[in-house]
Amino acid sequence: MTERYSPTPGDKFTFGLWTVGWQGRDPFGDATRPALDPVESVRRLADLGAYGVTFHDDDLIPFGAGDSERESLVKRFRQALDATGMKVPMATTNLFTHPVFKDGGFTANDRDVRRFALRKTLRNIDLAVELGATTYVAWGGREGSESGGAKDVRIALDRMKEAFDLLGDYVTEQGYDLRFAIEPKPNEPRGDILLPTIGHALAFIERLERPELVGVNPETGHEQMAGLNFPHGIAQALWAGKLFHIDLNGQSGIKYDQDLRFGAGDLRQAFWLVDLLETAGYQGPRHFDFKPVRTDGFDGVWESAAGCMRNYLILKERAAAFRADPAVRQALRDSRLHELAQPTAEDGLSGLLADRDAYEDFDVTAAAERSMAFERLDQLAMEHLLAVR
Amino acid sequence: MTERYSPTPGDKFTFGLWTVGWQGRDPFGDATRPALDPVESVRRLADLGAYGVTFHDDDLIPFGAGDSERESLVKRFRQALDATGMKVPMATTNLFTHPVFKDGGFTANDRDVRRFALRKTLRNIDLAVELGATTYVAWGGREGSESGGAKDVRIALDRMKEAFDLLGDYVTEQGYDLRFAIEPKPNEPRGDILLPTIGHALAFIERLERPELVGVNPETGHEQMAGLNFPHGIAQALWAGKLFHIDLNGQSGIKYDQDLRFGAGDLRQAFWLVDLLETAGYQGPRHFDFKPVRTDGFDGVWESAAGCMRNYLILKERAAAFRADPAVRQALRDSRLHELAQPTAEDGLSGLLADRDAYEDFDVTAAAERSMAFERLDQLAMEHLLAVR
Amino acid sequence: MTERYSPTPGDKFTFGLWTVGWQGRDPFGDATRPALDPVESVRRLADLGAYGVTFHDDDLIPFGAGDSERESLVKRFRQALDATGMKVPMATTNLFTHPVFKDGGFTANDRDVRRFALRKTLRNIDLAVELGATTYVAWGGREGSESGGAKDVRIALDRMKEAFDLLGDYVTEQGYDLRFAIEPKPNEPRGDILLPTIGHALAFIERLERPELVGVNPETGHEQMAGLNFPHGIAQALWAGKLFHIDLNGQSGIKYDQDLRFGAGDLRQAFWLVDLLETAGYQGPRHFDFKPVRTDGFDGVWESAAGCMRNYLILKERAAAFRADPAVRQALRDSRLHELAQPTAEDGLSGLLADRDAYEDFDVTAAAERSMAFERLDQLAMEHLLAVR
Amino acid sequence: MTERYSPTPGDKFTFGLWTVGWQGRDPFGDATRPALDPVESVRRLADLGAYGVTFHDDDLIPFGAGDSERESLVKRFRQALDATGMKVPMATTNLFTHPVFKDGGFTANDRDVRRFALRKTLRNIDLAVELGATTYVAWGGREGSESGGAKDVRIALDRMKEAFDLLGDYVTEQGYDLRFAIEPKPNEPRGDILLPTIGHALAFIERLERPELVGVNPETGHEQMAGLNFPHGIAQALWAGKLFHIDLNGQSGIKYDQDLRFGAGDLRQAFWLVDLLETAGYQGPRHFDFKPVRTDGFDGVWESAAGCMRNYLILKERAAAFRADPAVRQALRDSRLHELAQPTAEDGLSGLLADRDAYEDFDVTAAAERSMAFERLDQLAMEHLLAVR
Repeated sequence: MTERYSPTPGDKFTFGLWTVGWQGRDPFGDATRPALDPVESVRRLADLGAYGVTFHDDDLIPFGAGDSERESLVKRFRQALDATGMKVPMATTNLFTHPVFKDGGFTANDRDVRRFALRKTLRNIDLAVELGATTYVAWGGREGSESGGAKDVRIALDRMKEAFDLLGDYVTEQGYDLRFAIEPKPNEPRGDILLPTIGHALAFIERLERPELVGVNPETGHEQMAGLNFPHGIAQALWAGKLFHIDLNGQSGIKYDQDLRFGAGDLRQAFWLVDLLETAGYQGPRHFDFKPVRTDGFDGVWESAAGCMRNYLILKERAAAFRADPAVRQALRDSRLHELAQPTAEDGLSGLLADRDAYEDFDVTAAAERSMAFERLDQLAMEHLLAVR
Repeated sequence: MTERYSPTPGDKFTFGLWTVGWQGRDPFGDATRPALDPVESVRRLADLGAYGVTFHDDDLIPFGAGDSERESLVKRFRQALDATGMKVPMATTNLFTHPVFKDGGFTANDRDVRRFALRKTLRNIDLAVELGATTYVAWGGREGSESGGAKDVRIALDRMKEAFDLLGDYVTEQGYDLRFAIEPKPNEPRGDILLPTIGHALAFIERLERPELVGVNPETGHEQMAGLNFPHGIAQALWAGKLFHIDLNGQSGIKYDQDLRFGAGDLRQAFWLVDLLETAGYQGPRHFDFKPVRTDGFDGVWESAAGCMRNYLILKERAAAFRADPAVRQALRDSRLHELAQPTAEDGLSGLLADRDAYEDFDVTAAAERSMAFERLDQLAMEHLLAVR
Repeated sequence: MTERYSPTPGDKFTFGLWTVGWQGRDPFGDATRPALDPVESVRRLADLGAYGVTFHDDDLIPFGAGDSERESLVKRFRQALDATGMKVPMATTNLFTHPVFKDGGFTANDRDVRRFALRKTLRNIDLAVELGATTYVAWGGREGSESGGAKDVRIALDRMKEAFDLLGDYVTEQGYDLRFAIEPKPNEPRGDILLPTIGHALAFIERLERPELVGVNPETGHEQMAGLNFPHGIAQALWAGKLFHIDLNGQSGIKYDQDLRFGAGDLRQAFWLVDLLETAGYQGPRHFDFKPVRTDGFDGVWESAAGCMRNYLILKERAAAFRADPAVRQALRDSRLHELAQPTAEDGLSGLLADRDAYEDFDVTAAAERSMAFERLDQLAMEHLLAVR
Repeated sequence: MTERYSPTPGDKFTFGLWTVGWQGRDPFGDATRPALDPVESVRRLADLGAYGVTFHDDDLIPFGAGDSERESLVKRFRQALDATGMKVPMATTNLFTHPVFKDGGFTANDRDVRRFALRKTLRNIDLAVELGATTYVAWGGREGSESGGAKDVRIALDRMKEAFDLLGDYVTEQGYDLRFAIEPKPNEPRGDILLPTIGHALAFIERLERPELVGVNPETGHEQMAGLNFPHGIAQALWAGKLFHIDLNGQSGIKYDQDLRFGAGDLRQAFWLVDLLETAGYQGPRHFDFKPVRTDGFDGVWESAAGCMRNYLILKERAAAFRADPAVRQALRDSRLHELAQPTAEDGLSGLLADRDAYEDFDVTAAAERSMAFERLDQLAMEHLLAVR
């Protein structure tokens, strides 16, 4: 029974080095696990059936390391990749851990910090491309403020645009096959973070010089920290052609960023998310950005990594069964999803205005009395999720 | 002392007819106040110093009223406007109260409901223009769902786009001087509403055929229901050139939609909002979309309407004092807001890459040790708000 | 496959008349369904396998009805109960719909409103007992405020205590076999409601004259509206011997009160809740207090009522399988749940103080390194829920 | 103007050593400030006008320090207290930072960890008493879980009770003049924490062997993280005679624990809180448990510490002016707060039942039409807060 849910590289599951490598340091407690060698992570994740890994510059090469240390670390890492066949489809920059970024990277009030942040990013872009990445994620976790006077948001957005325009110039000039994906988050570690949701990031992108190079990397828990429906946000990103990457994890509602393994937290949204990704033909990696709970040792680290993938595959099976069930198809018709897919006014404005059935002769009462039949449809989804059909 | 805070039409304060006219019906209780004649509202608000009123079609003309009733109601209303000098800068459509809209207007699964919704909107646009409105608000409160299968969000966004494209065609063909403003809301009355935040609405607009005709009408409480910083959202809307209108009220955090009078709820965000609107040169109406608490009679209705305006004027005075205070100017410099206003790389990519001070020779430790001095700045803001400086 | 999940009266599923009878009126919309005859509800719910129904006085007898109307309505209702074998294990008072309760019932500032509220409650207690109820629920939805000066909370709690003390006197004097169950809610329809959570209600009860007569009736969604873990709250109520009744439904996080059918919303908490109720030996009714979505007609009403019961039975089966699985038992041991069940200091204070292994010689590092093995345990729970084991 | 708001020891303002000493380590970033010598903190806080300091054992004496280091550190600290006149009215135990407490202290699944936690607490109680503390706070930040199977809450509450009963035995046997204050928190660092709100803690206390020894230490931000009204919670704690201590800070709504300086966050709740503490005759320390923002250096540390006290004093002045204003007194009468203070049924049950005016002859419609006049009252409060009256 279990083999059905065993991941293979073809499933394109990827993990950040910082996920399995998280040592369990939190705002109220010290690390509970020792550091994990990135090479060990590559091997263990390969064994579990993953497709690849991703990294922040500082995950691989300690902040401030010299050139020779850097080279030797990269070499070891590349050897592990080669030995296992693991890919690096995405990389990103750490612009949040070091105290120099306490007020942000691209939008720090201090100009020299912004310049340093850009250079740090450019440097890691070279490495990302060298290792085969085609997506470069930007999470601006420190771009924000705790108080109203500390940041002029309009001006900060100018600086943010300046940064992405420069990055776009760079990859264009270098001829890199690399696109950027902005990762929104509403708050934590800043009181309020700029570009707090998928929507804000999508809107921002439209004001860039090269919008085609920039999309989003939404994370389950980040949208749910704002009480937003994650599949709805992903649908809007897909609709805009901007879902360049995705971070999957779990979150139990509006509170601190939990980064639970995928499936934990809001299970029903996870079901609808997988249904959406699979039916929409999303081709990118299924990237897990989670934190194994700090109560556990390495047993829990690998158990939860395996659980992320396994839960995805279970949900994928259930969503496919849901879509294939004739009773569901009938319920979708009863709920008139096929009518939603029809244009409202293929007869154009003049046709609509001339159509007395649309307004003057429309039987409002009769229309109001039609049941949408949503309860049945949702119960069918529940029963496919729970495998009782 | 009080006269300083007495509103005049020059302050451009406006109120929805549905605000002072709210009868206090809520999910658990019946109306506590009788219906209010729109003409009475116009007169009372004029007496209080307002600039104008706004309306949903059904606020002025009952749903389903015949042509002669319609004409006579409009005539009476216009006479009240003429007599008082009150303006109607904005109007909107009610696509949520009647049961026919239970699954939405522009994105209802039922095609005939969508056509009816569009016709209802077009009809009221004519009246809006006739009464002098230059902004037409669209709050899609019923466009959403409670369950994952009930709405295909990508297709629903196609329908939403189709609707706004048609509306854009209409005002263009008619030569109307009217722009649209989308009002986002995360939830209530639907479990999840499409275009849930300012960001999602801004992003959506960029995919329209006539994006220049469409902006946003953010409401204080709606963003705060998602835990988002309202002034930050307004700043992004201004940055995008899309703040076409604004709904001011109060909300005490993430819960049901409270629509408290302006100033109630998050007072410090209200301060920063007024500071932003006044310094950004926002020229539109200051529109209050609130509900006088249902415990009160009409005394509370007019008291709260007056309170909205008065609180705005108090905060305007305090924000101006904050900006004018030399100690604040020094604190802003200490927090390097002036540096945020400088380009990060006016030397361009090549300059940045060649600058060893930006990276190789950058003294990270020294930079990390600089205080941002935000606590002092925020305490100064607090003291101006509380008038102790 | 389906019959396993068909409810019978032995499952003790009950429904409020106001649940299936909800007409779909919400803050932004009119009713979408006609009124439902309570007798029809009794019959339909009996057909679906329910054990009984519950009611607010006004659900059965319209507010202000005369004695003869009252008698005839009660008679018809009782005949339906007799004909179907349905029970009425609980009843409650509506102290929130009529405008007279706009500032509350037991804690309204107006003394005569408080007296009226008490008399209305006493009257319905007689009927409740007459119909066989042994639990009387008190949801004080209007006991609260929107502003800080409107309610002196300490004094309001005095009034609340006075009310429950009087009610306790009454049932004692009458010799009724009836206990009270307070239903907490954090907000909506008031900005903040008194006794906002299970905890606050439990604490309040301890200050009553007859605490033994009063327990709690927690509702899934109400606790989740405060972001609280519902099973944790139920566990504390059980621990205190105070779980007199329970309201089951679904809620998607911190937002307006959704009252989704049981299972919808947070499915994993629903699993743990059923696990808790079944293993703790809770004997009371499984009472559903939900609202069929207003988009649906009566098809959705009965579909969702059936879904509540069916989902409970599915979860009951899954929880039982989880507890019976040897792998789970091992995982529970690996997580040391058996150690939690051991006293910490059966050797008493002196033993503990004398035990050098407890402190001076305790190997903190070794203890810190032990894995709690929680990820495996939680994944096992997930897999039982999803029926992949 | 400023001197009015200069704190003196008589104001009883106290600070945790860990507040000004917070180095700015957060889940995504390293420390931004060096460690602060407790002696330096005592001196600086004394200079600013504070009354005293409080401490976790590990704030003063590093975890695992030997006896001689301990003695010398305590001696230095005591000298600083003597030199400055600063008091230590409260102390507490750190049962959360060291990895050994990753699953809790008093309710850790591991029995030996629980024993160690108790011994660590007992040891620090001796020091607390030695330094003059009369309140001992217990924040069980790690007592909780992230998943449903990891903790049996009923059994965990047994262990929690066992712990407090033992502590009560100890201080009784020792003859210490020390009471305990439980500090509730809903979540963070655990997914869900036991005793999540003031209410849950108050209820728990009633089941202890010596309930009179145990009260609560509510923290502003902790209740607001659950969306609860902090002054309401404090009022219930006062009503129960259980407000043994209080932690004042600021929080911007439901999100991660922010620990802003007092006044920041929800300013209007801060006003009502101060009004409550001052009118209720609370005699304990006004204890600030906040974190100076990590963007700032020590300038911000002392600025924010001063700001906490200053904001309290400003609000105290404003609340007093509010209560003294004849217009406010009239508004309170118009809102019938005096009627709330009258018993509902001083005539007892029989009187109430016999009173036809209470029910049969009660004019419900007339009563429903009375305005509660809350908007005026709340606007008066706003205007006193903003000093425009």
